Amino acid sequence: MPSAFVDSTICIVGLGLMGGSLAAALSQSGCRHVTGVARREETVQRAQALGYIASGTLDLAEGVKQADLVILATPVRQIIEQIAQLGTMCRPGTLIMDLGSSKQQVCSALDRLPPQIQAIGGHPMCGKSRSGLEEADPELYRNHVFVLCPLERTTRTSLERCFELIDVIGARPLLLDAARHDRLVAVTSHMPYLAAAGLVNAADEFGRSDALVWEVAASGFRDTTRLAESDVTMMLDILLTNRQAVLEEISRTTSQLDLLAHALASDDQQALAALLTKARNRRKEL
Amino acid sequence: MPSAFVDSTICIVGLGLMGGSLAAALSQSGCRHVTGVARREETVQRAQALGYIASGTLDLAEGVKQADLVILATPVRQIIEQIAQLGTMCRPGTLIMDLGSSKQQVCSALDRLPPQIQAIGGHPMCGKSRSGLEEADPELYRNHVFVLCPLERTTRTSLERCFELIDVIGARPLLLDAARHDRLVAVTSHMPYLAAAGLVNAADEFGRSDALVWEVAASGFRDTTRLAESDVTMMLDILLTNRQAVLEEISRTTSQLDLLAHALASDDQQALAALLTKARNRRKEL
Repeated sequence: MPSAFVDSTICIVGLGLMGGSLAAALSQSGCRHVTGVARREETVQRAQALGYIASGTLDLAEGVKQADLVILATPVRQIIEQIAQLGTMCRPGTLIMDLGSSKQQVCSALDRLPPQIQAIGGHPMCGKSRSGLEEADPELYRNHVFVLCPLERTTRTSLERCFELIDVIGARPLLLDAARHDRLVAVTSHMPYLAAAGLVNAADEFGRSDALVWEVAASGFRDTTRLAESDVTMMLDILLTNRQAVLEEISRTTSQLDLLAHALASDDQQALAALLTKARNRRKEL
Repeated sequence: MPSAFVDSTICIVGLGLMGGSLAAALSQSGCRHVTGVARREETVQRAQALGYIASGTLDLAEGVKQADLVILATPVRQIIEQIAQLGTMCRPGTLIMDLGSSKQQVCSALDRLPPQIQAIGGHPMCGKSRSGLEEADPELYRNHVFVLCPLERTTRTSLERCFELIDVIGARPLLLDAARHDRLVAVTSHMPYLAAAGLVNAADEFGRSDALVWEVAASGFRDTTRLAESDVTMMLDILLTNRQAVLEEISRTTSQLDLLAHALASDDQQALAALLTKARNRRKEL
């Protein structure tokens, strides 16, 4: 029942771009008991002033003790640490969800919670390259895929609560197991991020002998490398908790670059045209 | 004198995105004798109907014979072929410029023109991933860098005419020699294009075992791979006429990806953080 959902107490841990946007979306949709946990008092005050949360605290135990639903929106390795603490902090029946961008290690941590705690992994497939509460936007989730990774313990009631939440913020639920999720996002998100960082670092290396490179970098370079601006703490956690899949995708992408280089070096115009045409057609279908 | 410039006859060869946008910008700025050469009669009619050109033809010789300024806006290998024909088609004193994205081979072709023909290489650093006259925009050039590669034969008067043209369309001139230009754009344009194509082809390979990859591709993947949509004929010409520099940049970028992979594989968090932070800071400066 949606009416029950808007009356539940929802504690969002981490009020950056993702947590702040979620708090804003829920509060603006009529949820009256959205609370927050942040590291800094200014963040709590700002989120309250913006109407994103009804109340907030710097203390995790204090923040989650009355919650029906706890949503962890911190960097992945912090999520894993916080899950370990939540077992004794939450009331029985509390549902814990996270918004982390890698899911296997998070779901393993959730599996280790005491049995009276409900849990599910979550990953909304949206974001911005800039981070922080100032970038928060209640519309951030609208029309985007929101992945849910149910655990063995996840009850039907818990899953329905997640569907309600996803419905309220205008996103689209997608059920996936954690390992498959992690392989998919290695391809569509983690590898593009590393490619962007690699391109910028290559330009930086070149730029040491010709600084004009930054003058002539036009919109194509900017778009392709936008992801390199992502928050490093967040990305480091994601990469380190999805190492194997990411390494496979680096290898797959460099193999594709090798194919292009080989066709170009050997003047195999037909092969080069075929590779570029395949990429163009695929990209246009997106 | 700008008044002389608006009275000159300017023939634009190729009425796609770049040529069409240039014709539109010049005509809307008061140039009354902008003419066009296209491959298809419909394109000529459409450009005329839009007010981009005063008249047009399918015949190169016919189009250029009265021109004071000829601007070649076709794919690079076609530019090179057309330059070879223009020597006997143009009146003495005609200035030939091109808009090709690689410059060494084009400038060599321009060098081989008869001495009574004026010539200069050009490359406006702007564009869109979609091509064609329908995408043309008189504002395309505004505030973008417009590279000029003067030849030995290029007179001061010719250079001044180019500055006037660049001023009229709102761009910013940058003088570069052709070899340096080609190395720079290999870094900032050709390599990002290949990285985008490589990422799409890697996702395509992965997608053969899990088609859900296209479902979860969010805005990050879209931005990073946007360039893969570029016109293949145009890009093929650019890559084949800038082979050596492009191959060096593929190698430089894969080396940077190897550094990232090595730091991740060996759990060298400090090295990984340093590489990602360098990229982030550099990208934010853009």
